[in-house]
Formats: sequence, structure tokens, C-alpha cells
Amino acid sequence: MHTSEVGNNEESMATITGHLASFSLWSSSSPKFPNSSRFSCSASKSPLQHGNRMAYMDFPYVSPSHKDLMVDLASTLDTRLSSFLNPCNLPPDVQSYQNDTGTAHAALHLRSGLHSSPIDFMLGSWLHCALPTGGALNITSLSAYLNSSTDAPNFLIELIQSSPTSMVLILDLPPRVDLVLNPDYLKTFYQDTQLDQHRQHLDKLSEVKPYFSSSLYIRAVVSPTAILVRIETERLEEMIETHVGPIAKEVLKTWLDVCAFGERVVGESERDWLRKRDDMSKSKTIEIDLGSNLPRLFGQETANRVLEALKEVF
Amino acid sequence: MHTSEVGNNEESMATITGHLASFSLWSSSSPKFPNSSRFSCSASKSPLQHGNRMAYMDFPYVSPSHKDLMVDLASTLDTRLSSFLNPCNLPPDVQSYQNDTGTAHAALHLRSGLHSSPIDFMLGSWLHCALPTGGALNITSLSAYLNSSTDAPNFLIELIQSSPTSMVLILDLPPRVDLVLNPDYLKTFYQDTQLDQHRQHLDKLSEVKPYFSSSLYIRAVVSPTAILVRIETERLEEMIETHVGPIAKEVLKTWLDVCAFGERVVGESERDWLRKRDDMSKSKTIEIDLGSNLPRLFGQETANRVLEALKEVF
Repeated sequence: MHTSEVGNNEESMATITGHLASFSLWSSSSPKFPNSSRFSCSASKSPLQHGNRMAYMDFPYVSPSHKDLMVDLASTLDTRLSSFLNPCNLPPDVQSYQNDTGTAHAALHLRSGLHSSPIDFMLGSWLHCALPTGGALNITSLSAYLNSSTDAPNFLIELIQSSPTSMVLILDLPPRVDLVLNPDYLKTFYQDTQLDQHRQHLDKLSEVKPYFSSSLYIRAVVSPTAILVRIETERLEEMIETHVGPIAKEVLKTWLDVCAFGERVVGESERDWLRKRDDMSKSKTIEIDLGSNLPRLFGQETANRVLEALKEVF
Repeated sequence: MHTSEVGNNEESMATITGHLASFSLWSSSSPKFPNSSRFSCSASKSPLQHGNRMAYMDFPYVSPSHKDLMVDLASTLDTRLSSFLNPCNLPPDVQSYQNDTGTAHAALHLRSGLHSSPIDFMLGSWLHCALPTGGALNITSLSAYLNSSTDAPNFLIELIQSSPTSMVLILDLPPRVDLVLNPDYLKTFYQDTQLDQHRQHLDKLSEVKPYFSSSLYIRAVVSPTAILVRIETERLEEMIETHVGPIAKEVLKTWLDVCAFGERVVGESERDWLRKRDDMSKSKTIEIDLGSNLPRLFGQETANRVLEALKEVF
């Protein structure tokens, strides 16, 4: 990836599929933070590394606040959904991979839902990519997709950082039906949950500006209360601790309570429609997000391996 | 309308239905600009006034640049679509109306499309409302809706002004299908037409900030390239002449060339779907836009008269 493209592509790398992550204050060769051992992709394996690979929950390149937030969100999802999820069955070289020169690292964590559950899958990722300027592009993300037993929204968070003082935050419950045709759905999941208050809170901060994805499809996929913002500040740590973290945890709680554990009755014809829409959304997102970026960052062979593994659930 | 509500309600008065208009630099009792005679609601009638009422194309309260832009857009629509449109059949007291105290004036201009045409209707409006502070709320709007013979997007522009130095601009081709499920539609009408370049152009100006409608439904109705901005400047006239005007004319040209005169094949089952979605969109918009505001501004009797007339086409 060329530095000049970061501005346009920083979020197209990961939005919605939301699979890759890391942080840019530190170089790729010398992570400065201790690895976490709180979380493992598969309960029976070492939580930390597969061989010399760094796993999803290690978040090796990110600041303490950033890492704490991602670990907290992933652990919350893991705990609340534990009875619904299969272990992560990704091959080790998809759970963690890098390019030939070692300037780009990434980790993936994917757990599919049991058929009897409302969960399609949950997906966590980080990506770290050293930039020619000496900085780095770092993306951390976590998403959860529901299956067609419910039409409730999915969950998505991504933190995208291309400089020590600038971060893009994408936080949303993307809807799974056409909101124009379904005002009751809009009321249930977006108005009654008062999700917009979080966007409004951030909007009042001088360091925060609205962010527009370069992909029109991504703009169409998100909800009317989506938080898509760029945060520009010397004090990113404080911003994460004081604003981003509490809001992200609150939005995840809303998603768990109202969406994942909400009771929705979906008829058979609506299920067919949902599956069609979900399939389109997921395949377009893979195409936009990873189709061109993964080969460029990691080479065609690794890209193919990762994409094949993802396509099995996507 | 209370001044304190202008911030939240300034666009909910008119968005999407987009029917009402005027301008706030001048008081409601002494319009300073000559009326236009270029346009008439019905070709056989006086273009200017019905009795002592001011008609849509008069734009009596707005600045020269603002008026010129609205007249240009409405004339362009009228000329290009002339063979498709019926005359305006609204009763005179709906074409122009005011409240008992004369502090609120409005005009409506509505022409339905011939059944053989792709046009459902075009609707123009202005609203002027004196505020207790001595200023005024002024809204001008113009929209064009297509019928179910095509699924191409509609056209919408609104200029909403609640102070001499602040204006909200809403300019969009609202889609008529679920974009998540129809990426080809997104490509045809939004990517290939390069509509986002206009939003990007405005986004680069320091006087321009993104604007978020207080209505989540309105946010859901607009397209990914929608221009929803607040312009804050002492030089609004210059801003309209240099930026808003040229962009609005270009977007209308795109709509006419690609949407109104574009060839789309729509199957019978898709038509049913389109009608259902269009009906929902229009009725929700009336409810959001006018349901509570018209009675407050003009009294229940006038509000009922106007709403009844609109519901015949909406």
C-alpha cells in the first residue's frame, strides 16, 4: 500500500468485513506492549501464539487503551455468546499471517454460530502495515453477524489508524432490511434504543469530524445512526478512554440485549429475502474490502489462502 | 414555530416532501425583490399572483441569487418535462396560503405526470415564517418523483435558512430500491454519474459542514452521495452563485439525462415492490415533514386543506 493511498483506502481495507487490525504508533518490528493471554481462538491451544505467530487477542502493535478496548469488546462478545459459538477453525496460517518482508502482519479470529443459535459468525481481526514514511497503518476490528432466524442488525466496530494523531472510528449496527420500507424496524432498533445519542456526543467534540467512506456501497450498508468519524488529536489515548471506549461498550451492550438476544419472528419468505440480502452484502464487502488490498499487502498466495478461508463462512 | 426549535426542526419542515420555501434576510411584510413572471402554475393564468396571493415562482422573500437558482431549476424541469406534465390543479388557497396573523406564508406548485410518462409528479414550494427574534425561517424546495414504469431515483433540492448567515442545503437523487441488494443500481446512478464529486467539492470549503437530519427516516431515505450540509458564511450570495448553484444545476441535469430520460426495464413484480416502497416513503415523509408542522404554523384548518390536496398525489 502506498502512503498516498492511505487517505482513501484506510477504511476500504477493512470496513464491514472488518477483519484486520493493529496500531501505528509503534513499528512493526518492535512491539512495545506485553501480549495478552486472556483470550484464545481455540480453548485447547496456547492463547498467545501459534508457533511464532501473534494471535488476534494479542493486539501487539496497539496502545494500551486501544488494546484494552478491543480485548474488552471481544471478551464481552465471547462470554455473552459462548453457548452459541463453535471454536475458531481457521488454519493457523490464516489465524495469523504476514508478508515476505515482514512489513505487514495480520491476525484473524472467526467463530461460526451453532445452527440452533441466532448467530451466523463473529469475526475479529487486526492488521499492521509499515508505511514507507516510517509510520504504519493499523486496523483493529470486531464484527458479529446474525443468521436468518432473525432480521435484527449486525454489530461492527473498526478503529483505523494511519498516524499517531489520527484515527477513524466506524461503529454501527448495520441494518438487515430496507429501512425505507420498514419504519417499524427503524423505530425498534435505532430510535427506541437512542443510538443516535452516541453519534451526537462525539459530534460535539472539536477533535471529531464526520468521515465519509470512499466506498459508496459501504455508505449504503451502514445505519442512519452509524458513527463514522475521524478523530484528530495529540491525545488519542485519552479520547479512547473517555469517549470511544464507553460508547463502543454501550453500543455492543445494546446489540447484545436488543439484537442478539431480542426475540424476532421472521417468516419463511422473509428468511429467503434476508439470506439473499445478507449474501449480497457479505460478498460485496469481501470484494471491496479485501479483494484488491490483500494481494497488494501480503502477496497473491497468502491472499488466496485467507480469502478462501473467509469465503467458507461469508 | 419557536426559535429554539429551528435548529432541530429546520429541515424536518420540508425534507423529501420538500414543499415549502423562502428566505430569511428580508421581512415577511416587505419583499424587496421584483416578482418573476417567467413561470406559471397553469399556463392560462396570470404567472404572478392569484388574487393577492404570491405564487411559487415569485419567491418573494429570497435574495437574488437564491431566487435565480430556484427559478432556473424549476424552469429547467418545466421545460424538459413539459410534454409529460399536467397543469397544476391545486386550489388557489393551496397554491398560496398564510396564517391568520400574516407571519407565515407559503406557496405550493404541483404538477402530476401523464400516465404515459415516467413522471409521478413534480412539486415546488416555498415557506416563509417570521421568527420572534425578528429573523425568519425560509425554505425553498423543488422535487420530482418518478412513477413505477422506472425504478430510477427521484430528484430533491431544499434550501433552508434560519439566519442571514446560515443555510442548510439538501440536494440528492434519493434511490428507489434497496442499494445493499442492488449494487448495479448503485453503480449506474451514483458511481458512473460521479455524483459524489459535488459532495466532495463542497466538503473542501471551510464554510461548509456536514448536516445530519434530526429524522432518522430522512437519513435512511437519502442516497450515499446526498449533499446534506450546513453553510455558515457572511457571503451566502457568493456561495450560492459560485458553488451551490452550479452544483444544483449539474445534479438536476444528471437526473434529467440519466433518470427521467434513462431507459429502465422494470418487471411487473418489481413494479408492485416499487409502488409499495414509494407509497411508504411518501406517506412517512408527509407525516414527518408536514404532519405536525403545518398545523403549528398555519392553524389546523389550513393545514388540513393543504394536506388533503397533497395526499391526492402522495
